[in-house]
Amino acid sequence: MEIPSVYLERTVEQFASLPGIGRKTAMRLVLHLLRRERQDVEAFANTLNELVQNVRYCVDCHNISDEERCSICSNPSRDHTTICVVENVQDVMAIEATQQYRGVYHVLGGIISPMDGIGPQDLEILSLVERAREPEVQEIILALSPTMEGDTTCFYIYRRLADADVRVTTLARGVAQNDQLQYTDEVTLGRSIVDRRPFKGT
Amino acid sequence: MEIPSVYLERTVEQFASLPGIGRKTAMRLVLHLLRRERQDVEAFANTLNELVQNVRYCVDCHNISDEERCSICSNPSRDHTTICVVENVQDVMAIEATQQYRGVYHVLGGIISPMDGIGPQDLEILSLVERAREPEVQEIILALSPTMEGDTTCFYIYRRLADADVRVTTLARGVAQNDQLQYTDEVTLGRSIVDRRPFKGT
Repeated sequence: MEIPSVYLERTVEQFASLPGIGRKTAMRLVLHLLRRERQDVEAFANTLNELVQNVRYCVDCHNISDEERCSICSNPSRDHTTICVVENVQDVMAIEATQQYRGVYHVLGGIISPMDGIGPQDLEILSLVERAREPEVQEIILALSPTMEGDTTCFYIYRRLADADVRVTTLARGVAQNDQLQYTDEVTLGRSIVDRRPFKGT
Repeated sequence: MEIPSVYLERTVEQFASLPGIGRKTAMRLVLHLLRRERQDVEAFANTLNELVQNVRYCVDCHNISDEERCSICSNPSRDHTTICVVENVQDVMAIEATQQYRGVYHVLGGIISPMDGIGPQDLEILSLVERAREPEVQEIILALSPTMEGDTTCFYIYRRLADADVRVTTLARGVAQNDQLQYTDEVTLGRSIVDRRPFKGT
């Protein structure tokens, strides 16, 4: 498909370079932008520039932040004795949305994945080990995805934390809320029987 | 879901304002951009700015163009006696990709859709009627989508072209290549029987 304008072509290429966006979708998005007011598109471009010029990462937990220290790490009412280790910024937001966690976070910035060439040295693991040695820290929660890469990363971090005086925990695994038992995979269902909990009849 | 940075928030909002992109997808796209080099994101913003500053529309056919007149309209080897009327720029590219058409185009910039508040005055219909009156023009092909809005627009244009000395044609309708007959809708299948063509045994 030949594109009649080099400027259109370049913008379509940029959008098509984003994950999950093919050339046809990119074209649709760009032509949608072209139907907007010119200053709206310039505002779009401007937010992108402002983002990369101003975005920072929290010096403690490496979450995205507008300040040197993010709003969670700098909040004195959060429990700084517990650190929840997550893969990325979305996971922080997902856990925050549950309103079940009052501790702080540590964003690894990825997960060990030899297939993608991501090793431990590419992640914020060294800084986690350092944080775990601070006397106030009592518990490290490994909240990584229950996949092979997630488990590998958990094991690696667990070994690196061996000589730190902290309790290492991980997320409970079991059947998800509203799952149909007959469609639950064998591993999850088997584990949920082995890890069964006392029934609270209240 | 609370976003930890106002710059991130603003950029996510911009992406989420695009059609078919929700907030979760927008977040994924922006965090992907954040993993890129800073100059790559600035280049992304720059192509957007360059696009709106430089994009033009062909004075004849209203297709997107880098010049006053697009590459199709300014090509003397194209057949300027035949004008193919299409809804938008994507349709020009789709027809060009077939390599079956050597005439020129007329981009309406939309389709008559009272539900969306788009009337004939919002489209390039007046300029089409003017073009149709030029002595060299012999045929107007109405190549609009076979939908209610497309048919309405076709009828409107057809009436407006009543006093112009041109042949008005439209795309053939029938079963699509590789369609399963049993799953073809009744209207299409019925029409393809009524409009049956001599079989070419070669």
